[in-house]
Amino acid sequence: MANSVSGDSVVDRVVRVIAAFPEGVLVLPLSELAARAQLPLTTAHRLVRQLASHGLLELGAGGSVRLGLRLWELVNRNSPTLALRDAAMPFMEDIQQVLNQNVNLAVLDGWDALFVERLHRRGSVTNRAQIAGRMPVHVSSAGLALMAGQPADVQVEYLRQFSDPAGKLAPEDLRALLQDSAEQGFAALAGVVDPDTWAIAVPVRDAKNRTVAALGVVVPPREMRLHALVPALQTAARGIGRQLHEERNPTQFHSPEFL
Amino acid sequence: MANSVSGDSVVDRVVRVIAAFPEGVLVLPLSELAARAQLPLTTAHRLVRQLASHGLLELGAGGSVRLGLRLWELVNRNSPTLALRDAAMPFMEDIQQVLNQNVNLAVLDGWDALFVERLHRRGSVTNRAQIAGRMPVHVSSAGLALMAGQPADVQVEYLRQFSDPAGKLAPEDLRALLQDSAEQGFAALAGVVDPDTWAIAVPVRDAKNRTVAALGVVVPPREMRLHALVPALQTAARGIGRQLHEERNPTQFHSPEFL
Repeated sequence: MANSVSGDSVVDRVVRVIAAFPEGVLVLPLSELAARAQLPLTTAHRLVRQLASHGLLELGAGGSVRLGLRLWELVNRNSPTLALRDAAMPFMEDIQQVLNQNVNLAVLDGWDALFVERLHRRGSVTNRAQIAGRMPVHVSSAGLALMAGQPADVQVEYLRQFSDPAGKLAPEDLRALLQDSAEQGFAALAGVVDPDTWAIAVPVRDAKNRTVAALGVVVPPREMRLHALVPALQTAARGIGRQLHEERNPTQFHSPEFL
Repeated sequence: MANSVSGDSVVDRVVRVIAAFPEGVLVLPLSELAARAQLPLTTAHRLVRQLASHGLLELGAGGSVRLGLRLWELVNRNSPTLALRDAAMPFMEDIQQVLNQNVNLAVLDGWDALFVERLHRRGSVTNRAQIAGRMPVHVSSAGLALMAGQPADVQVEYLRQFSDPAGKLAPEDLRALLQDSAEQGFAALAGVVDPDTWAIAVPVRDAKNRTVAALGVVVPPREMRLHALVPALQTAARGIGRQLHEERNPTQFHSPEFL
């Protein structure tokens, strides 16, 4: 069992325990949780019991641990994405019904697109369960649409540190992609993640014209009709932006003090 | 400023900070957060800074605090409700489209129905943002459908401690309601929360015939057609139960060790 990282605080350890679950893994044996959180088993057990007593974790009879329903409740009833999701949902449903395509909504977090909502085309079972999934900016149309709308200094910093793990995309190519996305008002990428899909995304702008989200669709190549998809997405994105502006508390998601 | 509750641990304090946001309130001034968490301002500030350094909270320039996008991501990508929600979503969409009604999915948590997913009828804007909302068992059809499917000892304990805050419902009436729900295979309640709505819910059962969720609709009185709504809901609920059973890891949500 790994020793506790020296010098860490209780808060650090709590965070490591909560963050120890790999994406999509809902249950971990206590021993594996301890190892992943870099904590001695006894320390992990004590922390898990304390967190479980508040419902933030749940400790099963067999020594398995999962996140608690209470934690899910606390986070989702006060989620920073709540206002954005609520504003976007009716427009996402419109896109889903009118175009019959998978629809997604993402925000920029660091150098990733973080997906805060997805709706799936009727009958589709792929891509489920990927709410709260991430994709690097350079391989996702949502990421490109988001980054293309950021202030120049953010883009410069992003391009400065960029290096494609796949070794395919040079920073100058990426700069050109962002430039194109900004000029066209949308980003489109063919089959980067899945060769049989195209992805298109447009920026969602708030009342101050800041790009706060990206609205996108994922379509099979035969349905890749930019002339139909882009205007529909842009119309919906404008509706979302207006809705954000009209909410009782329009600053809930993108409060200036958090930008 | 309230003093720290004596004898509490750092874990207790972290939990109080995260739980300090009232439902639907996304941003709190630090001073109010401290008061709600019963912590001295300096203690609250230190904890908030520590949690913010890990992205679990976000500290705005003006001293405002909100839950962090990172916390939302961690909880939602590993949520204990993920498998249930994924199994249910296509069937909930079917109900929404076929019946054009608000659809919801709830689990039992303590003596409450906790809503893990909602879909809204086209054009409706009411009831938005209530994912992660709760309703006491006795005032919600979902709660009644869930409780009616629990083992006898759970129902006995529930009825033993029950007392209606509104003073209207006696335990023997509630027992009869649960009995009816169990026999009929659904629960229906007229306008308890909103006088202009009816709510109907049916149990979702897993492969071992345990009631693990409730699937429901909320309808205006003129559309309260039990003979049409109940079979549709029951059919969808069976589909969800089968889907739960067929998942690669059917025990992710209702693992026996957590029951």
